[in-house]
Amino acid sequence: MQAGNPRGFFITFEGLDGSGKSTQLRRLSARLEAEGYAMTVTRQPGGTRIGDRIRTLLLDSRTENLAPKAELGLMFSDRAQAISEIIEPALAAGHVILCDRFTDSTEAYQGGGRELGSELVLRLHAAICGGLQPDLTILLLPDLARSLARARRRNQRTASQETDENRFEREEDPFYQRVWDAYRQIAIREPQRVVAIEGDAGIDEIHQQIVDVVLKRLADHDARGQNGNAQS
Amino acid sequence: MQAGNPRGFFITFEGLDGSGKSTQLRRLSARLEAEGYAMTVTRQPGGTRIGDRIRTLLLDSRTENLAPKAELGLMFSDRAQAISEIIEPALAAGHVILCDRFTDSTEAYQGGGRELGSELVLRLHAAICGGLQPDLTILLLPDLARSLARARRRNQRTASQETDENRFEREEDPFYQRVWDAYRQIAIREPQRVVAIEGDAGIDEIHQQIVDVVLKRLADHDARGQNGNAQS
Repeated sequence: MQAGNPRGFFITFEGLDGSGKSTQLRRLSARLEAEGYAMTVTRQPGGTRIGDRIRTLLLDSRTENLAPKAELGLMFSDRAQAISEIIEPALAAGHVILCDRFTDSTEAYQGGGRELGSELVLRLHAAICGGLQPDLTILLLPDLARSLARARRRNQRTASQETDENRFEREEDPFYQRVWDAYRQIAIREPQRVVAIEGDAGIDEIHQQIVDVVLKRLADHDARGQNGNAQS
Repeated sequence: MQAGNPRGFFITFEGLDGSGKSTQLRRLSARLEAEGYAMTVTRQPGGTRIGDRIRTLLLDSRTENLAPKAELGLMFSDRAQAISEIIEPALAAGHVILCDRFTDSTEAYQGGGRELGSELVLRLHAAICGGLQPDLTILLLPDLARSLARARRRNQRTASQETDENRFEREEDPFYQRVWDAYRQIAIREPQRVVAIEGDAGIDEIHQQIVDVVLKRLADHDARGQNGNAQS
């Protein structure tokens, strides 16, 4: 942070594969760096050495019959490691953290998509992550068909195993509809934390919306710090 | 099972490294096979392809600063996979299952040893394992100093990374005392499920105690099945 509030600010990006979230995260990161903010940029799963190994296990596992609750355990193990190794230290150092996916992804994909339910995911989040919540979540929810078409085109271009999409590419459309619906429910449940950007505006227009929201929230956060009311 | 009860019987072996549990598990397995029981023998962590990869990650992780709650997530991920892939199918097939370590180990080592607390471990067990409990747990609790000396001698003999002990060999004695105490508390809390064998009787004598308990419980289980009261 530039001033005032000693505790950093934790921003997550959420949305389906193909929603444009990773592109928007990179553009926001560049903008905030240009503004002079100290930044930490990470992603889940992965981002730590342990997490990268867990990510590999998750991506490979489609050939090995990974049980849904085993998948859930791996997701939260990765997250606990990232909180301990990256997120808490960066918050303590006063950084703005941009994280590509967090527990909302688990609630949407495993809770909604795989139908394990939100309640189980939130219980595990409370137990393993101590309930740590982002200060702000940018949720990109363009039209579902458009996201899927974009993700599939990208999959055809890349032979790599290292994209999120490969993990889920075999899932049929009803799966993705459930993920989309679960994301939307999270946004309805937590309107203060989650800023949902629906519709199919262009990349520049969405970037500007995100910048406007983020700079305002950061200014508020900084002001609270200067008034001695630092939130955690 | 030989007759009567269509559902199998789930037996776990618990105790510190060096307690002799793996030796006793092998001897019981040979005896039950000789009695004609259909058997499934497994261990945790590991036992499935996914679980073996998680086990490797756990054993390697001492060099990589694994967060305690990340360790917990990996333990339960492994367990969920084993339940789905091995334990539930074996129970449905009517097998006697012998499993070297289960959730009591997590409660003793992570809950007690690492001081994460029993309550967190039991909450995760309920969430990820659906609360599946062994029908019978054999807990070997010889004198702590004797267990540790035995585990350390074995460590010096084996250069392998593949023994349970390597994971924890750096821990000091108070850690193991907490593990021992946590095991004892579990036995006090659940005297029907957990048969604790304390003291330092010889291998043959302990084997005979275990055989006596197990054959009696299996006969009871079988009788309940024949009376149409199959327990799960």
